[in-house]
Amino acid sequence: MLSERRLNMVGKALSKKRAVRADATARDQLLEAVGALMAERESIDFSLSDVAKKSGLNAGLVRYYFGNKAGMMMAYVQEVVGSAVTQVEQLANMPVGAKEKLRIHIYGAVSNYYKHPYINILLQYMMKESNGEYKNTIMNDIIKRLVFAEQKILEDGQAEGVFKVVDPLLFYFYIFGACEAIFRSRDTVKYFLDADDVNEDIKQKYTKQLCDLVMNGLGCVDKRG
Amino acid sequence: MLSERRLNMVGKALSKKRAVRADATARDQLLEAVGALMAERESIDFSLSDVAKKSGLNAGLVRYYFGNKAGMMMAYVQEVVGSAVTQVEQLANMPVGAKEKLRIHIYGAVSNYYKHPYINILLQYMMKESNGEYKNTIMNDIIKRLVFAEQKILEDGQAEGVFKVVDPLLFYFYIFGACEAIFRSRDTVKYFLDADDVNEDIKQKYTKQLCDLVMNGLGCVDKRG
Repeated sequence: MLSERRLNMVGKALSKKRAVRADATARDQLLEAVGALMAERESIDFSLSDVAKKSGLNAGLVRYYFGNKAGMMMAYVQEVVGSAVTQVEQLANMPVGAKEKLRIHIYGAVSNYYKHPYINILLQYMMKESNGEYKNTIMNDIIKRLVFAEQKILEDGQAEGVFKVVDPLLFYFYIFGACEAIFRSRDTVKYFLDADDVNEDIKQKYTKQLCDLVMNGLGCVDKRG
Repeated sequence: MLSERRLNMVGKALSKKRAVRADATARDQLLEAVGALMAERESIDFSLSDVAKKSGLNAGLVRYYFGNKAGMMMAYVQEVVGSAVTQVEQLANMPVGAKEKLRIHIYGAVSNYYKHPYINILLQYMMKESNGEYKNTIMNDIIKRLVFAEQKILEDGQAEGVFKVVDPLLFYFYIFGACEAIFRSRDTVKYFLDADDVNEDIKQKYTKQLCDLVMNGLGCVDKRG
């Protein structure tokens, strides 16, 4: 049985944990509201009162958790894009073939743009925000890590003899451009494909054809394996 | 020798021609100012007084020539993008091999984004403007023609046995996405390539590698020619 002192300690610890959890929930709710607003509007234009309305929380909490709107958007970037980059890094280090890694990476990238089609506009915006305060963070904590992870996959493929040598940074641009393009042209998709929006079926066809083109494009004649 | 009546007629015709030319010049100056402002700011945010200042002309001329700001931006779209699309259509009908046509098309597309990096933002914006008044014009007079011209090049390549079969609309998205990506990420280019901006040299390397990847990607095993 626990002593009273120990019970008190556990009680305090639990209260603290509950407080932290409530804290995390409110913070998460705000970030969820940010994501939902951008997805609905297909744009990064929203006000703090929009966030308050969407989350059902007081706009003052934004100041409490993030300092200001830019801080909140940066927290969103780190949560959504940061975790995607971590996944690509883990993928790059997995013991599977480079072609398979690149295929998984392209499927993941298209899926991310499907869920967050405004994400590159947000990154561009944040790099210009707060006198460039966030620019180095975005470059070092996000883009550099992504480019390096892609570079590792490409180099693995070269070592395996299945990929030709390409400049990894230029390749990074093609891939993000091609993965994202369909989500920046939803009107065109609706018009030509007679669809309400870029749906799961279109996304699948888009990714499959892109993967095939990229794999074929990177393919080299002399294969070792 | 010309009769007096004939001379008068010629005189009137010349005056009219001069008037038309002066007209065209002021109109062109306004559109040039629009292009220069968007290029400088890497954005489509500008006011009519910005245009007046840049062109050295009265802002009232915008109303005279284009009705309003949206009308002027639409005239800009038709002038810049419309003429680029006409070139792609002419290319598609030229008596050269499909691979050569596609290569020229990709070089042209990258060069256009190099000159007008804001052009897709402008198209997206115009499609939402004026209650969708311009949407059909952009779809029918620009995007549809571009997609069809690209489709013709792809089909020619299939008929020649040098391209595998792909969905031309999905392909259209990859190409514009990949051609444009580097110009939407100038901060990244500057950071990684230690360059002041996307310069001629980077543009050339970017295009060459993209062309090689696309040609290889579209390449089919059984070649007829």
